[in-house]
Amino acid sequence: MNNVYVAGVDMIKFGRFPNRSVPDLGADAVHGALDDCGLNIKDMQAMYCGNLMQANAMIGQRILQQVGQTGIPVVNCANACATGATAFREAWIAIKAGLYDIVLAVGVEQMGKGLLGGAQAQQGIPREGLLGSSTMPAVFAEAGMEHSNLYGTTFEQFARVSVKNHHHSTMNPKAMYQVETPLETVMNAEMISYPNTKLMCSVNVDGAAAAVLMSECKAKELELIARSVKIRASVLTSDPWQERDLVMPDVNSCTQKAATEAYEMAGLGPEDIDLIELHDCFATAEILHYGNLGLCKPEDAGKLIDEGHTSLGGRIPVNVSGGLLSKGHPLGATGIANIYEITTQLRGEAGTRQVEDARLGMTHVIGLGSACAIHILEKSA
Amino acid sequence: MNNVYVAGVDMIKFGRFPNRSVPDLGADAVHGALDDCGLNIKDMQAMYCGNLMQANAMIGQRILQQVGQTGIPVVNCANACATGATAFREAWIAIKAGLYDIVLAVGVEQMGKGLLGGAQAQQGIPREGLLGSSTMPAVFAEAGMEHSNLYGTTFEQFARVSVKNHHHSTMNPKAMYQVETPLETVMNAEMISYPNTKLMCSVNVDGAAAAVLMSECKAKELELIARSVKIRASVLTSDPWQERDLVMPDVNSCTQKAATEAYEMAGLGPEDIDLIELHDCFATAEILHYGNLGLCKPEDAGKLIDEGHTSLGGRIPVNVSGGLLSKGHPLGATGIANIYEITTQLRGEAGTRQVEDARLGMTHVIGLGSACAIHILEKSA
Repeated sequence: MNNVYVAGVDMIKFGRFPNRSVPDLGADAVHGALDDCGLNIKDMQAMYCGNLMQANAMIGQRILQQVGQTGIPVVNCANACATGATAFREAWIAIKAGLYDIVLAVGVEQMGKGLLGGAQAQQGIPREGLLGSSTMPAVFAEAGMEHSNLYGTTFEQFARVSVKNHHHSTMNPKAMYQVETPLETVMNAEMISYPNTKLMCSVNVDGAAAAVLMSECKAKELELIARSVKIRASVLTSDPWQERDLVMPDVNSCTQKAATEAYEMAGLGPEDIDLIELHDCFATAEILHYGNLGLCKPEDAGKLIDEGHTSLGGRIPVNVSGGLLSKGHPLGATGIANIYEITTQLRGEAGTRQVEDARLGMTHVIGLGSACAIHILEKSA
Repeated sequence: MNNVYVAGVDMIKFGRFPNRSVPDLGADAVHGALDDCGLNIKDMQAMYCGNLMQANAMIGQRILQQVGQTGIPVVNCANACATGATAFREAWIAIKAGLYDIVLAVGVEQMGKGLLGGAQAQQGIPREGLLGSSTMPAVFAEAGMEHSNLYGTTFEQFARVSVKNHHHSTMNPKAMYQVETPLETVMNAEMISYPNTKLMCSVNVDGAAAAVLMSECKAKELELIARSVKIRASVLTSDPWQERDLVMPDVNSCTQKAATEAYEMAGLGPEDIDLIELHDCFATAEILHYGNLGLCKPEDAGKLIDEGHTSLGGRIPVNVSGGLLSKGHPLGATGIANIYEITTQLRGEAGTRQVEDARLGMTHVIGLGSACAIHILEKSA
């Protein structure tokens, strides 16, 4: 099968842009990704677009209307918080199939205000059969409490996740927030659903990110291979069985399933990964995913954060971009924004937040109704 | 690249089911398609789901909750009226890429009442930049009038399309309507937007259809190849340039582009095709697509319908299922319902509406914002 690379990538600075349109934001990211690899929209052979809130509005085609219509196939994908990652993965599949050499993936979202559960309810997403009547903050609070009960994880340890990710974001000019939040500030913030305070919930922002995926032979032909990043694994899973406790630490979650498959596809293990952008939709979630992704035993997750192993400079830095907690979480854009961060790091272009000698990076997203996507990327040899 | 087959397929009888849920309808079609090839949901390695109206509601995952969760990758696709065909095509691509051998594609829709433009407006689909302020009936009325101006096509000829498709549907037990509509009835029906009367507009119905796609080697291994149907071409296009006249007969439409690419991919021409399910969202549209798909010169389209060439028993039967005009048009389901019809015909299992010696069949859909998908299917040797 064809090897596939990320040849160009960009994201807009996340923020709130009530006076701009979704296609307008998406077009900005597309222009950025094209500029990043010196290509034109006319070079793209197909396009995959991830957008959740306006998933039936042909956002991909509307972005092309702004960037330049060429008649290429456009597919609009929606997969909850894995929406952008799904669009990216479908682009990867299309190149693997040998149908195209250069495919554009874009993710974009304009969010409502408020916490995620509220935003989804506003958009009329039915929840029966998915999370029951639970809101997202309640689900991830419950999962955190279960982690505490099983492994003794403390409120302070959960809060340290937010301190770390906010610290990271001070070095990311594209993050929504770029301010330090001391431990006391995080712990004393408004309580949303214990143990997550307001500063331990992801930030609802507008955002867009885009990537140009390319077959290996085309990347060599265009002399783009040196700055390109190889896709070593791309995995998507759904919930492995009928259960409401999507993220409970003691169940065979779709994240665990995806991680197992991704490591197998890439032929490596968690010990080989140099940095991870994982789905810290709540501070409790990041702690849970340390175990789910195999970074440590579940019972050691609190220690991992306490000892700084997942901070920039640590053994396995997590969310050096600032993560969803501080960079922000524009649903459909998040998966490709993760790709932007890892690609930038593997290229050695991440400035003050650069992870030293980063060679292998991983992205992870998981969404309502349990679509989990994991990608493993590798620096060009 | 791997050859890909349709091994199992089914559709529910189209109708109005206000008291059933979208996942419930989808699950019925999935059960039918699995039964059709004697497989279990546990045999499916990935799932692609097409649904437009609730595109952000993780319909694919919710169908799996009813049919049996297995943790497989689920992708939800939305592409206007090409939604179901897009899901089908992505399933085809995933098998071509060698990632899977057996993939499920499902399309499902629960429609509002009223004409298409109205339904879309109700669902909050923004139209700026796509069709301007036009409704679908206006767009296809205008295109029909242009065809009349250029080629002398008459109101009666347009009306005959509806007579033909309603006649065909009397032989299709899964069609919404199964009644003859004489020419006078069609012409004297309520005028929606000249030259399309109410009986010349597609029927808003609820519906679902599903297909099991399979690699050639797996179909042989499971001894399903004899009743399977080969996918000879799968093409998706978007609008080739910035224009509002998506379906005008004298422009290089995305249907023309898709048809050209599909014939090239299959290595054949329109003269080789034995039957077509094309996008008769309005009677005028069918006439336009005779030319767009290369069945005749645009100026001969009226003659084609007058002389019965596109009727069952004619040279190139079109919409023997009854088409969108009488079988009905549940947006996300339509593309896969077309696959059901062609597969059933190529298997020789279409009963009284069987096209004799059908060996090659084509499906065509085109959607708002211009996503056009064409598939060419071939009877197993």
